[in-house]
Amino acid sequence: MKLALIQMGVSPNKEQNLARAREMVLEAAAAGADMAVLPEMFCCPYANEFFPKYAEAKGGMIYTSLADTAREAGLVLVGGSFPELEMGGADETRLYNTSFVFDAEGREIARHRKAHLFDIDVEGGQHFHESEVFTPGDRATVFDALGHRFGLAICFDIRFAEFFRKMCREGAEAIIVPAAFNMTTGPLHWELSFRMRAVDNQLFTAGCAPARNEDGVYVSYANSIVCSPWGRVLARAGTGEEILYADIDFSDDQKARAQLPILSAMRPELY
Amino acid sequence: MKLALIQMGVSPNKEQNLARAREMVLEAAAAGADMAVLPEMFCCPYANEFFPKYAEAKGGMIYTSLADTAREAGLVLVGGSFPELEMGGADETRLYNTSFVFDAEGREIARHRKAHLFDIDVEGGQHFHESEVFTPGDRATVFDALGHRFGLAICFDIRFAEFFRKMCREGAEAIIVPAAFNMTTGPLHWELSFRMRAVDNQLFTAGCAPARNEDGVYVSYANSIVCSPWGRVLARAGTGEEILYADIDFSDDQKARAQLPILSAMRPELY
Repeated sequence: MKLALIQMGVSPNKEQNLARAREMVLEAAAAGADMAVLPEMFCCPYANEFFPKYAEAKGGMIYTSLADTAREAGLVLVGGSFPELEMGGADETRLYNTSFVFDAEGREIARHRKAHLFDIDVEGGQHFHESEVFTPGDRATVFDALGHRFGLAICFDIRFAEFFRKMCREGAEAIIVPAAFNMTTGPLHWELSFRMRAVDNQLFTAGCAPARNEDGVYVSYANSIVCSPWGRVLARAGTGEEILYADIDFSDDQKARAQLPILSAMRPELY
Repeated sequence: MKLALIQMGVSPNKEQNLARAREMVLEAAAAGADMAVLPEMFCCPYANEFFPKYAEAKGGMIYTSLADTAREAGLVLVGGSFPELEMGGADETRLYNTSFVFDAEGREIARHRKAHLFDIDVEGGQHFHESEVFTPGDRATVFDALGHRFGLAICFDIRFAEFFRKMCREGAEAIIVPAAFNMTTGPLHWELSFRMRAVDNQLFTAGCAPARNEDGVYVSYANSIVCSPWGRVLARAGTGEEILYADIDFSDDQKARAQLPILSAMRPELY
């Protein structure tokens, strides 16, 4: 399988971002990609004040644009994430940080709502309280495509080893993560997390981030990454706008599991 | 707390190894260490054929030497590990890969038996089947010393995120790991594992390995290491014989936990 991570720049202009995403996904398709992944919040600046303004319901312009792009490109599209508006009863509305996945015919095949919201207060570093705006999702997500099973998580979800283990137990062979680490946590934990979750679960991991914009409201670490079941970095982007490609050989999962028995040697009765 | 990791060379001579361990622990005490840690199998070559020959019961020469050394040095001694012989009923004997911990008065305060045995078959790399000789332990281990709580695990135990989480849930502020990674898994996974378990559990991790001997039956990766709750490498040894020191400020656990809510943001109902 040829995977393409679309490390696109994100501007404050929603329509422009959708057009740029479409353009880059079509470029990845022309290069032979079977699956393309957009970054977390690929069409909305990453700040609490913007999320409600950019929010849309399922079936709105963003959703439709993603479905159309998947069909036009003829590939599986993991649609990064956008602020998803859900109307509840009694005039109640909720916002989720949501990733929809579309198949090559433009049909929705998965939806993941970020289950762990990003609340952080680093002294002299990053401050962010996503939970002031968003409602967390309530489950781990796996989906089937291209003859394989994938896990789907969003950014801060990767902090939780048990959450990744759950996707692994549910049969994931690769876990795809639209994400946007920052300049505090990125240098310390980005590569570390993608490598270790891959090793622990003996599967591929892929993180797709927005390109870095030093003048943006939130400075993305970028460095989109693909790791093998041995925890090797198969591909890693720089900081600018770029499509990162990786060839995924799923038989590597089985080879790692046979040679280094982690999953088979677990002793759940002790934990 | 001043921690000393005794990255000692291991010879085939048991008495010589015990003497060398004592010598280096006394040196660490003279340098102000409050706790010293010996490597996995610090007095026995790391190979299945040697384990039964070098095995001793609790109370034997190795055990007594460790207790005496702790008392003489006046520090807490994590006694690496040795092949522990246990006589069962009906002439049944069992071997464990066991770490005993002694306080500054030479009293045993903890015992951990390696709970995940090292079985590996890497193509063109490492082969080892510890389970042919050893019985696995049946629990995670924490102990109290110097006013703090420590987790204690042995080498391959670190492969299992849930095992480390259990020690964290039981109150560990630092997890001490006598270990002996090899030249296949060491370069790929040694630093990665110690850094990530520290970040995931927001506590200190320390791995103490034997010095590297290229001519030995098992070539240790060495590189003894101490990591902070942020996953920073606080101290890292080379490959030769060396005492690695690190000053541990346990308030860093609380700072990490306040600034980056991982433990407090877990959602166990989803896993």
